[in-house]
Amino acid sequence: MKNFSIAKSRRLRGTPYTSRIEKQGVTAYTIYNHMLLPAAFGSTEESYHHLKEHVQIWDVAAERQVEISGKDSAKLVQLMTCRDLSKSKDGRCYYCPIIDDNAGLINDPVVLRLNENKWWISLADSDVILFAKGLAIGNKFDVKISEPDVDIMAVQGPKSFKLMEKVFGDKIINLKFFGFDYFEFGGDKHLIARSGWSKQGGYEIYVEHNDSGLKLYDHLFEIGKEFNVKPGCPNLIERIESGLLSYGNDMDNGDNPYECNFDKYINIDNDVKFLGKEKLKKIKTEGINRKLVGVKLNTDKISLTGSLDLIDQNKNIIGELRSACYSPHFKKVIGIAMMKKPYWNGDQDVKAMINGEICVGKVCDLPFI
Amino acid sequence: MKNFSIAKSRRLRGTPYTSRIEKQGVTAYTIYNHMLLPAAFGSTEESYHHLKEHVQIWDVAAERQVEISGKDSAKLVQLMTCRDLSKSKDGRCYYCPIIDDNAGLINDPVVLRLNENKWWISLADSDVILFAKGLAIGNKFDVKISEPDVDIMAVQGPKSFKLMEKVFGDKIINLKFFGFDYFEFGGDKHLIARSGWSKQGGYEIYVEHNDSGLKLYDHLFEIGKEFNVKPGCPNLIERIESGLLSYGNDMDNGDNPYECNFDKYINIDNDVKFLGKEKLKKIKTEGINRKLVGVKLNTDKISLTGSLDLIDQNKNIIGELRSACYSPHFKKVIGIAMMKKPYWNGDQDVKAMINGEICVGKVCDLPFI
Repeated sequence: MKNFSIAKSRRLRGTPYTSRIEKQGVTAYTIYNHMLLPAAFGSTEESYHHLKEHVQIWDVAAERQVEISGKDSAKLVQLMTCRDLSKSKDGRCYYCPIIDDNAGLINDPVVLRLNENKWWISLADSDVILFAKGLAIGNKFDVKISEPDVDIMAVQGPKSFKLMEKVFGDKIINLKFFGFDYFEFGGDKHLIARSGWSKQGGYEIYVEHNDSGLKLYDHLFEIGKEFNVKPGCPNLIERIESGLLSYGNDMDNGDNPYECNFDKYINIDNDVKFLGKEKLKKIKTEGINRKLVGVKLNTDKISLTGSLDLIDQNKNIIGELRSACYSPHFKKVIGIAMMKKPYWNGDQDVKAMINGEICVGKVCDLPFI
Repeated sequence: MKNFSIAKSRRLRGTPYTSRIEKQGVTAYTIYNHMLLPAAFGSTEESYHHLKEHVQIWDVAAERQVEISGKDSAKLVQLMTCRDLSKSKDGRCYYCPIIDDNAGLINDPVVLRLNENKWWISLADSDVILFAKGLAIGNKFDVKISEPDVDIMAVQGPKSFKLMEKVFGDKIINLKFFGFDYFEFGGDKHLIARSGWSKQGGYEIYVEHNDSGLKLYDHLFEIGKEFNVKPGCPNLIERIESGLLSYGNDMDNGDNPYECNFDKYINIDNDVKFLGKEKLKKIKTEGINRKLVGVKLNTDKISLTGSLDLIDQNKNIIGELRSACYSPHFKKVIGIAMMKKPYWNGDQDVKAMINGEICVGKVCDLPFI
């Protein structure tokens, strides 16, 4: 595939870490919430192997927060998601599909409950702040909505625990998955969650204090040498193997949560009020006509920049491949596809035109590993 | 400046023209409304000279439309902008600052009134569709909101009139600035506006019919040879010289319309209802504390990727340079800056650190030319 440069400008916002990662060898960016998100430090496959064995520091400041505070904040946050947050707890993260009144997905953020009257919505790539403002204004909710100066750095990989323990001590090892707490560094308290967009384990540091945050960034590299720490970024191969979905890539506003296997985050059984609830009930009754699944293809190279038709024996289009990569683990191309009914079962043969040749493959369940 | 690749994926949507412009030599992209927007075909300065003399075809499909239709559509569109649309007419375009309830800018689109109950909001870079949906749901408006399959190609430059006349005849020459009408090509009707993001004259073709639209794209290149037609894209130098503001670069949600010289698009004198009106009245009474102006700097090279402090003799920060380029016309660097009061007048000296050296310059009015 031909390489194209990214034309930088103020509109594609840099992060507090940009000057550092550019010295550390970032080679490609994507844009996420109008911000630079590193997409490669050289080879994606080398970075994949490193991530699975060691520890990486990621500039994921592009995961912007929508802060919603005030008397009606819980009501507004609940209105936007089909997940039941009525029993949510302070200090916990919740993966929450955000949908519109037609049950179309708008985002799939992690929602942090700071307290009953203060929430952060840690975003995938869409301007949920505008949706929240529109809803709040229209409903005359008593809330304050803002994008705070929070610039996440992630520490990911199996050695992330040892590295973080070296800085923050025992306490951080005891943090449960999707829990968060405050930890001191450089004279400031930093919110740290046990989370991150890989399945290799790790943390996300929600940096609100720029100066001490940057010191922490540098410190992690200094003391992380013994763990072979490297700069990194969300890794296409690792996230597909792990079945981590990417909003805009694997699903978008044209898809509903049932089609994306979000059943366990859909609550239509009690009287909690949220947008699209009636539509979801209808979809559940009628059943879905397509579903996100995994696909394995018998080829060793793919460079997917958009959707790719998946076809059957008779060249009928039976699905749409939306993300894909070569998997060193499976030694073939794997991907995430929206398959039409009834072609989503694991014994389904699929074909696709890749690199000018017809490849054959099979549908499978997610996650791959 | 070091070049970084853009990591393509389905989330950064391609346009119907992407495969064509990649054959035609696009070298850089920016991302705009989650879509690829070409940012360079080789040298920006060569493209600038060509744009001012000849005619270019631009893939500006990233200028996405929000379509708002239904009984309450006019009410919703008006609610989002401080410009008075009560006397708007079918077949006309309106440049409309969109603001939130705090009078912070959310976008600066061109609004097309298709008819009283159907509007297109032709967007700068932010998800206004989410704002519109939130407001419509909260206010229980009877509207339908969607992003239609409309992929604009622009025909820009002084020879655009001759080129378009060759395809569409006299009628298109008589189209007034910011007027639009329907024109036939390839068996389909295409909405064409006399508009575009340059001051060199031209048209924007709102392509709803993909097949005939692509035929038109190819046709314009075939018959445009006599006018020296070339592929192009919004040009940084031309747009700064012409004082065309870019949302996200020159202004953002932290700025209000008065600070951006949008006075003539602000209506606080009659009873038209829109968000942020009370705040705008307050701002008008109290006066603004900063303003967008032009800046000329005595140097011949700049590569601005974020904001740059502008300082006075005593190194006090007196403004923020937000966009800049070398201007072949003025033979110096020019830019757009948010200047603090009282430093926004034309006799104001400014200094800035550029390429490791202190440069001196002057504040001036916009547009430059």
